[in-house]
Amino acid sequence: MRMRHKPWAEDYLREHPEIVDIDCDHANSVSQWFDNDHPIHIEVGSGMGQFITTLASQNPHINYIAIERDKNVMIRVLDKVRDKGLTNIKLLCNDAVVLTDYFATNEVARIYLNFSDPWPKTRHAKRRLTYHTFLAIYQQILHEDGDIHFKTDNRGLFAYSLESMSQYGMYFTKINLNLHEEDAEDNIETEYEHKFAEKGSRIYRMEAKFHAPKA
Amino acid sequence: MRMRHKPWAEDYLREHPEIVDIDCDHANSVSQWFDNDHPIHIEVGSGMGQFITTLASQNPHINYIAIERDKNVMIRVLDKVRDKGLTNIKLLCNDAVVLTDYFATNEVARIYLNFSDPWPKTRHAKRRLTYHTFLAIYQQILHEDGDIHFKTDNRGLFAYSLESMSQYGMYFTKINLNLHEEDAEDNIETEYEHKFAEKGSRIYRMEAKFHAPKA
Repeated sequence: MRMRHKPWAEDYLREHPEIVDIDCDHANSVSQWFDNDHPIHIEVGSGMGQFITTLASQNPHINYIAIERDKNVMIRVLDKVRDKGLTNIKLLCNDAVVLTDYFATNEVARIYLNFSDPWPKTRHAKRRLTYHTFLAIYQQILHEDGDIHFKTDNRGLFAYSLESMSQYGMYFTKINLNLHEEDAEDNIETEYEHKFAEKGSRIYRMEAKFHAPKA
Repeated sequence: MRMRHKPWAEDYLREHPEIVDIDCDHANSVSQWFDNDHPIHIEVGSGMGQFITTLASQNPHINYIAIERDKNVMIRVLDKVRDKGLTNIKLLCNDAVVLTDYFATNEVARIYLNFSDPWPKTRHAKRRLTYHTFLAIYQQILHEDGDIHFKTDNRGLFAYSLESMSQYGMYFTKINLNLHEEDAEDNIETEYEHKFAEKGSRIYRMEAKFHAPKA
């Protein structure tokens, strides 16, 4: 999700430190930011935030954390959180590679990856959010019963992710090869998904877990 | 693959015991049926045999075994083997559940599953050739480096198989979510595949291996 550069974006985010962490202030203690011990669900690459803010308003007993490195996009998430008056969601302006700086081992109950950048060139495979280095990060912060929910319209990224995750030792508890034909009822759409599904793009989805408990 | 009952089918198969095993005569020694020690590749559910007889004529240094329980279909495979004069292929008229009666541990290098019956009702899941009881059979007879190559046009069966195989502890080395658009060049079509791909059906394909060596 690339947006036009907005010079005021950073200032706007900094005006709301009760919702947005832009300087790693909550490293090692992000879950303590909430004043309860509800389960933590995170979305890596939240884009404009329709997905995670909808979940947050539907599930008040779950704490959500939206992670998005692009400040020009994150302002849209902040707008939604403020408009809806949500108190069970926080925003981290940072990259997925630093997740272990924020979360302790086993701290996260679920990770959402929605319409991640497919990085279609083989030489960019390392940047895909289902490359094995990212899976190792997710495995560390995920609770043993935790799972990853992954959606994409990119056929190549979905096939790659099934390969990469199974090779890493993950298994799939649910796979949809055409989500909007099969299981659309409970599906919460992202902005991007709504646009591309309307054009007839097929949406792929999976739920995955790690086989072995971490060492 | 259901064919009309042909009362003469069994007699015709019995006339060619050098090619067809109809009474488990080669149980425990099926690879010794060949007069060499080339790798053994098998197809479970060979249908009319276009796929495996094409492979057999292209790869004289591999021994092929076509397994098909329907005698009315197997006669078509026998016809093709005789017409092409192939000596590196044998036919077993039997069910997949008895594979371990024919093959020793580690004896098989590759298993092909093409357009298996999808058994779409949940109560029939046990009959799907990727149900865990069948995976246990494949694991036993497959060499440690062996793999399973699976193709189907049935979206539900493909999703189920990815789930079932990953839950069993298998991983995927290659996945095609639209084979005829992605990787059609080296693809050998089955009769069924040719017909349905021409009508525009999407063909799914995967290559899978077992993670852990068998106990």
